[in-house]
Amino acid sequence: MNRLFTARFFIDRVFADNSFMPPSVTTIRVRYAETDQMGVAYHSNFLIWCEVGRVELLRQLGFEYSQMEIEHAVHLPVAEANCRYRAPARYDDVVTIETRVAALRSTVIKFAYRLFTTRPDAAEPVLLAEAETVHVSVDRAMNKCPIPEHYLSAIRGTMDD
Amino acid sequence: MNRLFTARFFIDRVFADNSFMPPSVTTIRVRYAETDQMGVAYHSNFLIWCEVGRVELLRQLGFEYSQMEIEHAVHLPVAEANCRYRAPARYDDVVTIETRVAALRSTVIKFAYRLFTTRPDAAEPVLLAEAETVHVSVDRAMNKCPIPEHYLSAIRGTMDD
Amino acid sequence: MNRLFTARFFIDRVFADNSFMPPSVTTIRVRYAETDQMGVAYHSNFLIWCEVGRVELLRQLGFEYSQMEIEHAVHLPVAEANCRYRAPARYDDVVTIETRVAALRSTVIKFAYRLFTTRPDAAEPVLLAEAETVHVSVDRAMNKCPIPEHYLSAIRGTMDD
Amino acid sequence: MNRLFTARFFIDRVFADNSFMPPSVTTIRVRYAETDQMGVAYHSNFLIWCEVGRVELLRQLGFEYSQMEIEHAVHLPVAEANCRYRAPARYDDVVTIETRVAALRSTVIKFAYRLFTTRPDAAEPVLLAEAETVHVSVDRAMNKCPIPEHYLSAIRGTMDD
Repeated sequence: MNRLFTARFFIDRVFADNSFMPPSVTTIRVRYAETDQMGVAYHSNFLIWCEVGRVELLRQLGFEYSQMEIEHAVHLPVAEANCRYRAPARYDDVVTIETRVAALRSTVIKFAYRLFTTRPDAAEPVLLAEAETVHVSVDRAMNKCPIPEHYLSAIRGTMDD
Repeated sequence: MNRLFTARFFIDRVFADNSFMPPSVTTIRVRYAETDQMGVAYHSNFLIWCEVGRVELLRQLGFEYSQMEIEHAVHLPVAEANCRYRAPARYDDVVTIETRVAALRSTVIKFAYRLFTTRPDAAEPVLLAEAETVHVSVDRAMNKCPIPEHYLSAIRGTMDD
Repeated sequence: MNRLFTARFFIDRVFADNSFMPPSVTTIRVRYAETDQMGVAYHSNFLIWCEVGRVELLRQLGFEYSQMEIEHAVHLPVAEANCRYRAPARYDDVVTIETRVAALRSTVIKFAYRLFTTRPDAAEPVLLAEAETVHVSVDRAMNKCPIPEHYLSAIRGTMDD
Repeated sequence: MNRLFTARFFIDRVFADNSFMPPSVTTIRVRYAETDQMGVAYHSNFLIWCEVGRVELLRQLGFEYSQMEIEHAVHLPVAEANCRYRAPARYDDVVTIETRVAALRSTVIKFAYRLFTTRPDAAEPVLLAEAETVHVSVDRAMNKCPIPEHYLSAIRGTMDD
């Protein structure tokens, strides 16, 4: 069952390799609608929170994802999503989402995420989950197309910094 | 970027290794609420559909997950979820979810999924996504606890068959 | 607080007036993702289930809502939604959704819903909720436009029956 | 079809009657996950945003809804929800949620909401929706129970102000 844990080390490596790049940081608050009868946030919501994180990262680079879709007809559907859950998120928790660009090619972008919360009974922030999503750049007809150059260079600039 | 694809081969291996075990098969229909403005099902919904698949697998083994929670106070929160998206699911698509138990230990169970749809313009079923989820057995206080023996043996029975 | 209950009588009247029209009947099963930490289905999901109900009603009339959107560029966004919750829906409950067309004009259609479940400890089906949604027919640019005549006449035919 | 609009006037009256009470104001940003293939926020999400609004109203009164559930075992399930949609909310819109307590009895609380957004092409805030939700106070076993007195008096204090 060792292979189970391959993804973990990969994600750790990504964060290590890109430790020069400051992550984008944003927060959400867990909604009642997002809890389930186990009394914790249902796991698929973490992927939605990751989306909030990467949209904010793009915004901090000066891009509105909504404008990418409208002006450049570039969409970034998710080709792969991986999430490891470390601790449950609870109703009304303020969740901090750290997002980085972990890899970039002309038609592929990978984001890596760490989700934290603080709790009165914990001295340190509690790691809730680590995740990564891989996106392929497509046009309106869902055919692969390159990410426009000015997006690429802005993202690369941040990665080399 | 080779490591990106590690998960894929792992999932393929799981399905290969357990090819003796017939998968549980169930279907859902994509709801309008599940689409996004790209005109396809939003990616986090696939994890919810996987949940539908594994609940049906358990039901086919004679278990109601709701009863596991009530009678045995055993919960199976998701410790890890991986999903690779191969083709978009669209509104009103009937999605077939194939679910298998891919690995089993006293406190850990792993499910593997393949999601398909049929389309008038495609001769063969279209593979929409492959996924796996790893679950850890916990009690009401979210402490690790073994999966009750009669669940384990029923699942193992199917795997050895 | 009497006005609180106006909506109820209105909905009752609708069902009474159209008692000649057999409702469309479909079912969904409550997903774990749809529960909240109160241990019941979160209330906004009922609106999603109503959507499932009205899509099935249209399908039984011979229409695919997805085709209405593609071929005729007619969309039916929700202008108003009202729901009264009578009993909680629980995880894994099979919910029966009865849907009727309650009112119809060239640009407005109103659906009325009753949601039921059966439970081992209840002799009769348990009424979970009553709801109504009002939809306005719009084109792609979200401007009001008439519902195409062949849809109107098919729906009217059922109502007069 | 005049009766269709009864709810509207009722909501207007509520806001008028309680015009002395400053509404709680909070904001959310529309997530991609919340859009649908019509390119707008799916309507059931408005009920989730209303929940965000009423939790913030309670927080501004000094209460954490999570603590109400834990310490007092008081839950406030939704008995009725009504929403009128005036304009579509779009991806990435910042939505302002105004929430008021519209009625209060020992076991019933009604909230009223107005949802707005601002748009570059609109001089004034755009009204997206008006809604109301009625909640009944219940204990853990879902039996009606009075709202604890210190909650009642705090809410009443704000209403009389």
